[in-house]
Amino acid sequence: MRVVVTVMPKPGVLDPQGRAVGHALSNLGFAGVGEVRIGKVVVLDLAETDADAARAIGEDMARRLLANTVIESYRVTVEA
Amino acid sequence: MRVVVTVMPKPGVLDPQGRAVGHALSNLGFAGVGEVRIGKVVVLDLAETDADAARAIGEDMARRLLANTVIESYRVTVEA
Repeated sequence: MRVVVTVMPKPGVLDPQGRAVGHALSNLGFAGVGEVRIGKVVVLDLAETDADAARAIGEDMARRLLANTVIESYRVTVEA
Repeated sequence: MRVVVTVMPKPGVLDPQGRAVGHALSNLGFAGVGEVRIGKVVVLDLAETDADAARAIGEDMARRLLANTVIESYRVTVEA
């Protein structure tokens, strides 16, 4: 089963990468660009075949390794 | 309008970050972990209010800055 863990900086946490991309987009001539937030997406192929179990594994992976839960939030989705 | 650009390494392109995370997960005791791919997700708040126009802007941003289209593929989604 494929599990997708999306990790984003929590609202209010400074996102220098997002700021830099925002400035670069403006310099390229893109107008009307507001806030830019950059996160990471981790796509995992798991041997687990049960969707709920796969989600639980993804959540555990996010808490223990993939996300720094002090400054990041995560979302786990399961694809058949 | 909110535009989400997800950028992933193209299939077949070496993903050392994904490999490193895969090893780390195994070391933490997670079994049955197959391939791990890591990409980035860019969330942009645009002044544009038309969904199709916002998607086109996101595609243009991806091609010109957010994705290295030689080794990365991108997907653009628009959220109301």
